[in-house]
Amino acid sequence: MNNTIHIVPVILSRANFGRSKSLLHELKSDKRFKLSIISGASAVVDRFGEANKFIESSGFSVSHKIQCLIDSSTNEAQALTMSIATMQLTGILAKLNPDAVIVVADRYETLAISIAASFQNIPLIHIQGGEISGNIDDKVRNANTALSDFHFTATKKSKDRVIRMGANPKKVFNVGCPSLDLLNKRNLVKRNLAEINHLGVGANIDFRQPYILVSQHSVTTEVEQSKEYMNQIIHACNQFPLQKVLIWPNSDAGTGGISKSIRLFRDSGINISSWRFITAVPPDLYANLLKHSACLVGNSSSFIRESAFLGTPSVIIGNRQQNREIGKNVTLSRNSKKEIISAIKKQLHHGPYKVDMLYGNGKSGKEMKKIILKNFSS
Amino acid sequence: MNNTIHIVPVILSRANFGRSKSLLHELKSDKRFKLSIISGASAVVDRFGEANKFIESSGFSVSHKIQCLIDSSTNEAQALTMSIATMQLTGILAKLNPDAVIVVADRYETLAISIAASFQNIPLIHIQGGEISGNIDDKVRNANTALSDFHFTATKKSKDRVIRMGANPKKVFNVGCPSLDLLNKRNLVKRNLAEINHLGVGANIDFRQPYILVSQHSVTTEVEQSKEYMNQIIHACNQFPLQKVLIWPNSDAGTGGISKSIRLFRDSGINISSWRFITAVPPDLYANLLKHSACLVGNSSSFIRESAFLGTPSVIIGNRQQNREIGKNVTLSRNSKKEIISAIKKQLHHGPYKVDMLYGNGKSGKEMKKIILKNFSS
Amino acid sequence: MNNTIHIVPVILSRANFGRSKSLLHELKSDKRFKLSIISGASAVVDRFGEANKFIESSGFSVSHKIQCLIDSSTNEAQALTMSIATMQLTGILAKLNPDAVIVVADRYETLAISIAASFQNIPLIHIQGGEISGNIDDKVRNANTALSDFHFTATKKSKDRVIRMGANPKKVFNVGCPSLDLLNKRNLVKRNLAEINHLGVGANIDFRQPYILVSQHSVTTEVEQSKEYMNQIIHACNQFPLQKVLIWPNSDAGTGGISKSIRLFRDSGINISSWRFITAVPPDLYANLLKHSACLVGNSSSFIRESAFLGTPSVIIGNRQQNREIGKNVTLSRNSKKEIISAIKKQLHHGPYKVDMLYGNGKSGKEMKKIILKNFSS
Amino acid sequence: MNNTIHIVPVILSRANFGRSKSLLHELKSDKRFKLSIISGASAVVDRFGEANKFIESSGFSVSHKIQCLIDSSTNEAQALTMSIATMQLTGILAKLNPDAVIVVADRYETLAISIAASFQNIPLIHIQGGEISGNIDDKVRNANTALSDFHFTATKKSKDRVIRMGANPKKVFNVGCPSLDLLNKRNLVKRNLAEINHLGVGANIDFRQPYILVSQHSVTTEVEQSKEYMNQIIHACNQFPLQKVLIWPNSDAGTGGISKSIRLFRDSGINISSWRFITAVPPDLYANLLKHSACLVGNSSSFIRESAFLGTPSVIIGNRQQNREIGKNVTLSRNSKKEIISAIKKQLHHGPYKVDMLYGNGKSGKEMKKIILKNFSS
Repeated sequence: MNNTIHIVPVILSRANFGRSKSLLHELKSDKRFKLSIISGASAVVDRFGEANKFIESSGFSVSHKIQCLIDSSTNEAQALTMSIATMQLTGILAKLNPDAVIVVADRYETLAISIAASFQNIPLIHIQGGEISGNIDDKVRNANTALSDFHFTATKKSKDRVIRMGANPKKVFNVGCPSLDLLNKRNLVKRNLAEINHLGVGANIDFRQPYILVSQHSVTTEVEQSKEYMNQIIHACNQFPLQKVLIWPNSDAGTGGISKSIRLFRDSGINISSWRFITAVPPDLYANLLKHSACLVGNSSSFIRESAFLGTPSVIIGNRQQNREIGKNVTLSRNSKKEIISAIKKQLHHGPYKVDMLYGNGKSGKEMKKIILKNFSS
Repeated sequence: MNNTIHIVPVILSRANFGRSKSLLHELKSDKRFKLSIISGASAVVDRFGEANKFIESSGFSVSHKIQCLIDSSTNEAQALTMSIATMQLTGILAKLNPDAVIVVADRYETLAISIAASFQNIPLIHIQGGEISGNIDDKVRNANTALSDFHFTATKKSKDRVIRMGANPKKVFNVGCPSLDLLNKRNLVKRNLAEINHLGVGANIDFRQPYILVSQHSVTTEVEQSKEYMNQIIHACNQFPLQKVLIWPNSDAGTGGISKSIRLFRDSGINISSWRFITAVPPDLYANLLKHSACLVGNSSSFIRESAFLGTPSVIIGNRQQNREIGKNVTLSRNSKKEIISAIKKQLHHGPYKVDMLYGNGKSGKEMKKIILKNFSS
Repeated sequence: MNNTIHIVPVILSRANFGRSKSLLHELKSDKRFKLSIISGASAVVDRFGEANKFIESSGFSVSHKIQCLIDSSTNEAQALTMSIATMQLTGILAKLNPDAVIVVADRYETLAISIAASFQNIPLIHIQGGEISGNIDDKVRNANTALSDFHFTATKKSKDRVIRMGANPKKVFNVGCPSLDLLNKRNLVKRNLAEINHLGVGANIDFRQPYILVSQHSVTTEVEQSKEYMNQIIHACNQFPLQKVLIWPNSDAGTGGISKSIRLFRDSGINISSWRFITAVPPDLYANLLKHSACLVGNSSSFIRESAFLGTPSVIIGNRQQNREIGKNVTLSRNSKKEIISAIKKQLHHGPYKVDMLYGNGKSGKEMKKIILKNFSS
Repeated sequence: MNNTIHIVPVILSRANFGRSKSLLHELKSDKRFKLSIISGASAVVDRFGEANKFIESSGFSVSHKIQCLIDSSTNEAQALTMSIATMQLTGILAKLNPDAVIVVADRYETLAISIAASFQNIPLIHIQGGEISGNIDDKVRNANTALSDFHFTATKKSKDRVIRMGANPKKVFNVGCPSLDLLNKRNLVKRNLAEINHLGVGANIDFRQPYILVSQHSVTTEVEQSKEYMNQIIHACNQFPLQKVLIWPNSDAGTGGISKSIRLFRDSGINISSWRFITAVPPDLYANLLKHSACLVGNSSSFIRESAFLGTPSVIIGNRQQNREIGKNVTLSRNSKKEIISAIKKQLHHGPYKVDMLYGNGKSGKEMKKIILKNFSS
């Protein structure tokens, strides 16, 4: 045990897990590493899909679970959640004293991870720095970069940006987006999609027929409008006689508005027979769902990254992702029913696109492991 | 009152106040602004000099005082202090809902200010971004930059760095270091230094005679060595038959070691008759003390910034400031008694240097006010 | 303003408001008092009915809202919520520095109020100490008593218990339960109940016909069983061809289980046509709902206190209230569908009971005001 | 390991350790128990004597150390410290999930232990409930009693009080004060006192000659006066040509005032040659110091409890202990130099008293272990 490299990944939302799963798998199956996974925030809360279950059912054991999510759809709650997470993670990391901590991407809670590690001089590895999206996410992502020691970026441009921000170029590595690793698998076949009908409530989806996948998160700088934005999307999608699978939003400021829009639509009983509503999907099943969708609609970043690699037609709505690098498969739309309808029409007419390696080649996990091994072996 | 611009400066250490005092003075004396000052952390704790007293005795009223300093000289405590400050500031800012918040420089607690403001979409003004020093300070400073909306830098190079980090160039302004504004005053005359003998304990200093000013802070990435470093400095200074004025360190991880070194030296009773020990000095008196010192010894950033403008000979020790832009008046030394002695000798032999405007011209406060006014007037 | 008595009531759940509303009304309409109301926890969260709205729509202004509810249905979350509330209330009370703070009853979050006040030597007034119910509530209630300076009890026995616990007998007053003050009003007439149909979702209730009112909260020492207990209640009620009004549970450990039971029942679509589901009801409307119910079913303490005064037949289930003083109108039942059915049958057969003044005469508010005035006038 | 009883004692101040050491020793040396000790607050802070060192040097291992002490001598800080301790202990106890938690006595931080355990339904054992002292301590002690499941009291009267407060009489045990167990040892001989001269600073004490032992803590309801009270004591003691050993105060609101009084006295250099100043003493050495003192002066509760058993003359000053049960060896005095002088005179003239078993017989540890074993064996 003496010379194992002790790594602590911290997973505070369902997205964090998909973005690090392939790396965690590599580390877990290599005896030179010791893995202590911490999960917390919405990832341990039932009504946000409890991603923690997926971590454990994927064969990982979770060493610490932290409760820190403030129950409120306000911006204030995000800052409070972050502060509580910082307090709890600080104590746990002080005791574990690992060789490195892993933080993923740009959600507001992730800054707690970066502070708890960097303030205690524990080397910090950041996955997916250097991107530009829009929203508060840019600020958090760049703050994570500022506090990190090692950087795994998903694109060449991102790598350049991280270096321009002052990072040591020898510690910045463009490895692609690890969520793409899950798309390389042979089991992304339609018949496995049947499991979806065991999740959530609503219509039983016939996966031999086309379906729209909808996933819309709150723009935390436009909290007030979140409900109206979601209304536009629902009514736009209802113009198409296709089946719809909707994923409930993450726990952000403004999520309350999105949820209210969905709940009111569901309770209205009007035009709901073609919809299925799901709180969360395990990463591999989600990859499969992305692959076979006729069209993706919303502002999930997976509708840009994974979809580029898969060639799935995608309609990205509003400001949340406005500045990201996008592939040809993406059409941008404003928050307007009319524009959304026209974008979906265009995409359904076009059908699948060619594979685009903009966000990597699906082998990030292996490469990151190699780099970590090289840098942390004594 | 309708159209006043409501600004909230947050002062969490004595250094924060000196670095913003001239701006606060400008804002206070202009009716177009409303000022709500929050002070907290070591700035409200007696044994760290309670800078809050200086704020109030300078004619400002403090609207909120927050207790958040964890009493422990560990790195863990810094992360905890930061998290508690975030929680308290979040609630206060949610209620005040100001037009802008001001955060200064790079101490670990300042990140709480940036998070409480930026997570709640309150415009954040950062003073002194883009510098490079060494230490965890670089990480915190860059994270503050990442979370801020407006940037007032102290040097041209800093401005360039902030822009390279991704800031909107139209919102980055090189205004010089505001602590230099305090050096422009006519009252920096020797006879006013007598007040020093009313502060702290130890020798009565005769300010007609030369004195060494010592101020050493902890390098939070080298906490274990902090006591030994201080020992080297004390014994080096004792080689010189000059009077010494020592300022106790800030509240950082590792401060305990520095304090212990000083206390043991004091309790030993050997060679202490030429020393005076002071916990904190009001900003203007401190400026005066800097000006007339025969030599500055330690790693306070004022020994680089203010001293350049004043031309005071300065010996900077160790890694805390190793990468800062320095003027000709600064000699770098490692943490070794021998090297420190030789550096002090060189500086005493040289005497005062020419004024160097590297860190500004002493008119930052007025310029910042103008810029804020322009950007926040509706 | 000099001689006003500054009182700070802290409302952290919808129940807290009903139990203090009549007193707050008395204080508000008397110029010798200054009132600063703090609301927080589930009282400011939409999905728990946001009692804060009722406070404001009742003509009170809320001076501080605190976000502190941890989103998780675990016992751990209750302790965390309490600690966050303590931290926030401490800062606010330090700044307000009132003449007295009011804490109501026994919910877990209320201990935060008692600590924030008593640790800062601010006189603390406790409403409804000395009772015995069962559950963790007994512990919290007694801890509140231990930390308080003035005690307003609801029964003679409670007064005796508070004194036996060591309270100064001159500061213990049996004034009855203030929630009964709301029952004295002339407007508790059936036709006003129509407003209920504007709240929540489900069946439109015809208030000329009989209805069962269901309100079941989690027993925090039996969190695992909470879902099953609720199932038993739902299926028992469904044996009766009456209309049902269900109030969603408070935010406690175990609430998740109760909510899940209700949601699964609703999503099943079976036998749901006679039910209406409501998150929260303003205090006066709730009093009206209690008054005209054919039978009350669950473990809400209002089914014991208010119901005694109103004479409404009541079936109290399980351990949460097992040790409370009860009137003749109450039948106890275990958590078993069979027992519940038989108890409801008995109560429907009996019909309304005589008024019982066990929990007071509906004039507590006025009396408490007098006592406060006497003790705090200088 | 299956059937071991997992006990978690939480030590948040040096006093907590002395009051539980003999029990911890019993549990540690019995294989039927598993011990996980948590230490924190002032017990892990150097400048308050870091009692944690004594725990470890006594052969115990500490499983978790928590930093939670807010650095400020205000009442506000006590409430904040308590809230931070609650947050950290909650997470740790959720993970450890022990069979029982032990909380000692009445200091403000101990309430955090009681809440973290009781809110999570972990059985809580309280040592030293039911006493009456004065001060906020009474409130905290009674709140601890309210939240506890098992009660070990130090006197018969205390047992009766705990039962009157509502505790289950079968779970209340009068076992005496465990700190007396340390007094039974054969090694309480004068020559071992020499170790004292290795602790702290000041005069070298000659333990063949008489000495006064001084220990004064803050009365948290009289924070403002704490400095003046200490002045009175120092100047009273200086009227006697005996040696003095002074123990620095605990970390309470008001401690700053006491410390300032001591520091100013020390820095004055006048009459200090007979004084030794010590931050903290290991429990057994402290017992020895109590035993051989000519007179005890201050308000430490050990000057009442241990001193009764030892027969050491004791002068108890002010309100902090005004209502405690006292033995014949105690003389009460107000906070006045004159009264204190006269009380010391009387006690020096009287000399040692007879043993009084008021607070137990020195065998509490063994008895508590037996009771725990009986109640927790499955």
